[in-house]
Parts: sequence; structure tokens; C-alpha cells
Amino acid sequence: MERMGMVIGIAPGKIDEYKALHAAVWPQVLATLAAAHVRNYTIFLREPENLLFGYWEYHGSDFDADMRAVADDPETRRWWTFCGPCQRPLESRAEGEHWAMMQPVFHAD
Amino acid sequence: MERMGMVIGIAPGKIDEYKALHAAVWPQVLATLAAAHVRNYTIFLREPENLLFGYWEYHGSDFDADMRAVADDPETRRWWTFCGPCQRPLESRAEGEHWAMMQPVFHAD
Repeated sequence: MERMGMVIGIAPGKIDEYKALHAAVWPQVLATLAAAHVRNYTIFLREPENLLFGYWEYHGSDFDADMRAVADDPETRRWWTFCGPCQRPLESRAEGEHWAMMQPVFHAD
Repeated sequence: MERMGMVIGIAPGKIDEYKALHAAVWPQVLATLAAAHVRNYTIFLREPENLLFGYWEYHGSDFDADMRAVADDPETRRWWTFCGPCQRPLESRAEGEHWAMMQPVFHAD
């Protein structure tokens, strides 16, 4: 299992909308993530810096393939048309990233 | 159990030192955290924004008391004299905070 952290900005005027969306995430979106071996996924918000921090535990063996499967799910793509306008990807993100991945520097069980 | 996320800045010139410290955290520091009911604790680094994100799962019933116990541990206090100079607390943090707490907005098991 690999613990992953990622970060993205949020538009300050879209925070309420983003919270409302995430209080009732579509079942197919959750099922697609679960099928992609993503577990224990939490998103945190930090204001006034307007950052979202995502943490999840990846239990699969081919992360790129699993993420391609997520991106190929039509319901997830439709979900992203609602979330995307709320988010502000970091300028520094790697090519192909939306959320920017972070580097783990410490872990204790 | 409560999932908690927190954020703090890091001095860009101190990143290597911070990583080295956290590659070999002192056993008493880890024992003090465990006694404070902190589990599954991971710290992530984001460059070039120079931010640290912490995630942990709190299994106790009195977080303030547990955090006071951590802050009262002499070895932890000594540990902080090494970590503190690497960190840059957010201006926006609440009174009494060092790491700034974040708000959970989504969770999936």
C-alpha cells in the first residue's frame, strides 16, 4: 500500500459549491475510485490560502493504469465538469497532472 | 477516530535538514505521539510552494489534553528545537497553533 498526498487550489468563490458537491459525491464516482484501488481518501480545505489537500491509500499495483481507468469512466468525467471549475491547479504541477502530487517525508504507523 | 490534516511552511534552505531529521525520528518522539493516540501519521512535502502537509488519525477522546501531554514531553520539546527552525508557520494560523489545522470536506473509506 502506498500513501499519497496531493494539492490543488480552490477558487474562493466556489468553496461552498465544492463542499456541497463533496457532501454528496455520486455513487458511481466513489465506485470508480474503489475499483481503482483507492482507499481511505480524505480531502481537507485550508482557508484563507484556498488550498485543498488530498490524502489516500493506494492498494493497487499499477497506479497509472488505475488512474487511466478513472479518467475513462464517463460518470467521473461528468463529475469533473462540476468540480473542475471550482479548482485552481497549481502552476507548478507536473505535465498531465490536475492535482499536484506531493512527496512523503515521514510516516509513523 | 478523527482524521486530521494540517499545514505549515518550510524554509527552502532547510528542506534537506528536515528530511534527514524525519528519516530518523527519535524513538521517544514517536512513543509520545503514540501515547497521545496519534496513528497513521504521514507528512508530505510540496515544492516549490514549500509547504508541509500532515495527515494523522486521532484515536483518543480528548485531543487538547493529548496535545498538552505531547508538548510537556521533554524529549519532544528538544526535538522541536531542531524541527522548528526548519518550519515557517502560516500567518493565518489560529492562536496557539504551530501547524495550522485544516477542515475535512470529503471522506471515502
